[in-house]
Amino acid sequence: MNYSQAFIPTLREVPADAVIASHRLMFRAGLLRKLANGLFAYLPLGLRSFRKIENIIREEMTAISALELKPSVVVPAELWKESGRWDSIGESMLRVKNRLDNDFVVSPTAEEVFTAIVRDELSSYRQLPLALYQINTKFRDEVRPRYGVMRGREFTMKDAYSWHADEKSLDDTYQAFGRAYRKIFKRCGLSVIPVKADSGAMGGSGSEEFMVESEVGDNTLLLCKACDYAANVEKAACKNDFTAHTSIEGAKAAASSTPAYEKIDTPNVKTIDELCGFLKTEPAKFIKTLIYRALNVELDLSSAPGCKKLERKKPSPGAPEVYAEAFFAVAIRGDLDVNEIKLASILKASEVELASDTDVTRLTNAPVGFAGPVGLNSLPLVIDHTVTAMNDAVTGALEKDTHFKHVAYARDFKAWMIEDVRTVKAGDKCSLCGGELYTKMGNELGHIFKLGYKYTSSMNVSYLDENGKSQMPTMGCYGIGVDRTLASVIEEHHDEAGIIWPVSIAPYHVIIVPIKYDGAVKEAADKLVSDLKAQGIEVLLDDRNERPGVKFNDADLTGIPYRVVIGDKGLSASPAQIEVKKRSEKDNCMVDLDKATAELIGKIEEDLMEYF
Amino acid sequence: MNYSQAFIPTLREVPADAVIASHRLMFRAGLLRKLANGLFAYLPLGLRSFRKIENIIREEMTAISALELKPSVVVPAELWKESGRWDSIGESMLRVKNRLDNDFVVSPTAEEVFTAIVRDELSSYRQLPLALYQINTKFRDEVRPRYGVMRGREFTMKDAYSWHADEKSLDDTYQAFGRAYRKIFKRCGLSVIPVKADSGAMGGSGSEEFMVESEVGDNTLLLCKACDYAANVEKAACKNDFTAHTSIEGAKAAASSTPAYEKIDTPNVKTIDELCGFLKTEPAKFIKTLIYRALNVELDLSSAPGCKKLERKKPSPGAPEVYAEAFFAVAIRGDLDVNEIKLASILKASEVELASDTDVTRLTNAPVGFAGPVGLNSLPLVIDHTVTAMNDAVTGALEKDTHFKHVAYARDFKAWMIEDVRTVKAGDKCSLCGGELYTKMGNELGHIFKLGYKYTSSMNVSYLDENGKSQMPTMGCYGIGVDRTLASVIEEHHDEAGIIWPVSIAPYHVIIVPIKYDGAVKEAADKLVSDLKAQGIEVLLDDRNERPGVKFNDADLTGIPYRVVIGDKGLSASPAQIEVKKRSEKDNCMVDLDKATAELIGKIEEDLMEYF
Repeated sequence: MNYSQAFIPTLREVPADAVIASHRLMFRAGLLRKLANGLFAYLPLGLRSFRKIENIIREEMTAISALELKPSVVVPAELWKESGRWDSIGESMLRVKNRLDNDFVVSPTAEEVFTAIVRDELSSYRQLPLALYQINTKFRDEVRPRYGVMRGREFTMKDAYSWHADEKSLDDTYQAFGRAYRKIFKRCGLSVIPVKADSGAMGGSGSEEFMVESEVGDNTLLLCKACDYAANVEKAACKNDFTAHTSIEGAKAAASSTPAYEKIDTPNVKTIDELCGFLKTEPAKFIKTLIYRALNVELDLSSAPGCKKLERKKPSPGAPEVYAEAFFAVAIRGDLDVNEIKLASILKASEVELASDTDVTRLTNAPVGFAGPVGLNSLPLVIDHTVTAMNDAVTGALEKDTHFKHVAYARDFKAWMIEDVRTVKAGDKCSLCGGELYTKMGNELGHIFKLGYKYTSSMNVSYLDENGKSQMPTMGCYGIGVDRTLASVIEEHHDEAGIIWPVSIAPYHVIIVPIKYDGAVKEAADKLVSDLKAQGIEVLLDDRNERPGVKFNDADLTGIPYRVVIGDKGLSASPAQIEVKKRSEKDNCMVDLDKATAELIGKIEEDLMEYF
Repeated sequence: MNYSQAFIPTLREVPADAVIASHRLMFRAGLLRKLANGLFAYLPLGLRSFRKIENIIREEMTAISALELKPSVVVPAELWKESGRWDSIGESMLRVKNRLDNDFVVSPTAEEVFTAIVRDELSSYRQLPLALYQINTKFRDEVRPRYGVMRGREFTMKDAYSWHADEKSLDDTYQAFGRAYRKIFKRCGLSVIPVKADSGAMGGSGSEEFMVESEVGDNTLLLCKACDYAANVEKAACKNDFTAHTSIEGAKAAASSTPAYEKIDTPNVKTIDELCGFLKTEPAKFIKTLIYRALNVELDLSSAPGCKKLERKKPSPGAPEVYAEAFFAVAIRGDLDVNEIKLASILKASEVELASDTDVTRLTNAPVGFAGPVGLNSLPLVIDHTVTAMNDAVTGALEKDTHFKHVAYARDFKAWMIEDVRTVKAGDKCSLCGGELYTKMGNELGHIFKLGYKYTSSMNVSYLDENGKSQMPTMGCYGIGVDRTLASVIEEHHDEAGIIWPVSIAPYHVIIVPIKYDGAVKEAADKLVSDLKAQGIEVLLDDRNERPGVKFNDADLTGIPYRVVIGDKGLSASPAQIEVKKRSEKDNCMVDLDKATAELIGKIEEDLMEYF
């Protein structure tokens, strides 16, 4: 391809909103243009790399026997109503009515569509396991799209779904996708951090996110300095610095030498810090009790304290039954914070938030700041594991300006649920090896996930097993964001001058820069182009009538892995020579013209091997 | 690929609405499933052929230096408002508001988007000509989607756009696209009929449609029995069977021996047939005058009769000025029909329709049935060329129950415009060679079109020419429907038993059917698969535990070009033999097992050459 005909509009200026390197460089190197906030057009150079990523994904999907489908992007709302997500997914889903007033969705993901297709075709256990995928357009109506394609509104996702007769088969495929994902990212030249992720709104258990470090990442990751533990803060656990009691008897025994709890006056003391000052104690001696309001709670509350009057209803025919609103008390050691995402996951709630002052007062019979577990019967009490180890603690006394001291778990109050709801922080100890945890910000590129029966149940999927008995298959789902992957490669591989493409997804392997595209130089350049192309090497020939400096800058900016400079001086040497420079290295070297093709092919093959 | 793992759900039954072969076979052979009316999902087998068509298109686009882009599918309404099409395209365009209440369009086509991209990047004549394309999802909200993907709501289109400094350059690129399109369809094994098409709502001149014959086609084509003339009825011309007069003098001279026109009473005579009976004459002697109502007329009417009070307005800022409504009289020889699409094109109107009885009475001062050109001053008169040859005709007299006879064009009335508005019919004579024309129904697969300045003008695109002067580029656009192309291949290549894929776009080249996939047969089959795959041949191995009849039926239904049957009997012959059958042929032949790979590769290469 001749540069003059390749439509590569490089820029010196970048849009003011381009705050991260990939956003800046995708615009500057002429890979991308903006159509509207969060909507973009790939230009030829960007699309070449984009397609290479798609192909790597396709190859690795084929390698694990996943089959490609292509459903429409605009899909009927009926399917989303069946699964219940028409109601449960918020405004991020782009809904549209057509001229006949039918409801449609511009697909944000495709569990429903794939499940509907499989429902119609699945009859026998012999068809399982089955893994299907698409690489297709998705839309999520981000309120604040930013960072270029890293968080756009329309994007391309590889989304795969699998169906299985049993948990073992699901796990095999889940593991195979995990390995395929590691390979895909490696082939793209990306360093990913695989982390255990919270399962979020998708339901089910068993999931892994593939993260890349990013200054603007929307995930906080906890990593261990000593081992390869990595987790999203939404799900991270840590090693206990206390002895949790798993039995009521054990906890009571531990409290045997603690005096009976007693009421103390704490006038004008509301925060834990104030209380510590007042009582000359430390936050870790305090049981912090918070009142939470949870929405769309799937968990069975029929026997939970204070929940007798709550009613479980289906918000839509296909959705599971939920309590629209419920309140919970959550107790945790005073030096720690409650992780609301862990809490929502435990409660199977779509959302949790701190209750309003009015609700707190109503439920605790006291102003905000005096909630405590002792005597609290008006709502279910969830305690963090840390609280089970507390046998001489300070707590609120459900009365203004009053606390209790010498409170012991099990002896003085009981929990409705004991769970890990603690927010793990830098400095906590790794749950695997005890090493010190530290944090990084990360962006999610991929996600593999054991969905379980959520969709096969709501959408009535079944097959006949070996005994002719009807069974429901279990499901997995597996996504990769193609655009984000592309942008992340640039984030990881660039310098001041521009992009440094890994050979595997570079738009071209080689850029040939004739000092002046004329005479013997032109002849040598044209021959090298045709020799390289004959061997399958993708070559960009800078045939422009520009100063060498301009051409060199554009070669650096567009990041083509190998730059070949051909000039009169080198050609007149004996034997004739050309300059070869690898974009990722500082130094160039002179290569005999007649050995250049072989040398470049050798280098490129070596580079490609590196990523396999 | 093993058949058992390929997700090919073949069917015996077909949906009731599948009335054409491609629709039936795409469902029966497991290529496609329906998600909703006009919305489909390609299954693996269908997608393989779909991708091959995409690749053929891509190769031929690259061959003519068109560059691929990938803009988003959902695009901002602002661009459509700039061009004026936000208002001029009707409800077939899917419009959507997002959560921030911004307007978007699910792209039905992309003139605006590509023009906007080029507008920002185009600065110099040196960048021209420029041809860009995408192969991407489109949506048109058909009121009655039918015939499977032949007329779906969502579809994939290759749409290309080009920009040029002059008409010559546009024509060169237009011709290159025309050649590329012929090659694309040939490579897909399709017989297309290239026809001059009406330019429709797109504006501009110079366009060619690539049609395939179809029983359910939505275009009537006129073809010549003697030469290769082919035209859409919307635009078809024919050889005159009369002497048209191009000068007023010539026409007047031809009327020199005609008596002066005179009024005749024709009580209760309204239709031409009644009049012919009454006057004992023939329809060809009658000038039929029809009153039309036209909407959004772009043509300048400032000096047209009866139009002084009409006002030209822009319906939206980016749109051209139009008269919202205007009326016209159209005169044509009595045995012929007015082609309303030709008429709309001449008037540059978005729509024309016969005027209501009330409007006719108001404009002609007479009941319907007595309009005529003599003395008609209340509206512009458009006459067909046939009328210029009429120097002794019967016409309505603008008065109830009254006609004129001995009316002569030029002598007794003048035209505001003389145009070809005649509907050409089977039996008319070819305008090129005089041969007899006949009709076929056709479906459009592709369209190439000289757009002119419509978008570069409304969207303010400019560049600097050699002299540094700002100029506006002219444009072409070029589309191919990928889904329709696929369906049309099946329409052309099938029999009672199923699809007969051309090798070039077959999902697999060879299907290997072991009589029983076991023992020596399995061994021979596996080896053949691996030998063929090593040579780049795509093989489907029917490893299912099914009766041979079931496997043969599915092989025929899915239409894989070569079927290889391996059985114990053939293998025990000396030398060992297998059966090879071409799907398109009746007979099979026995081939030595050890020569099978070479023989199949030879056949496949030969087939592929045929389409080049």
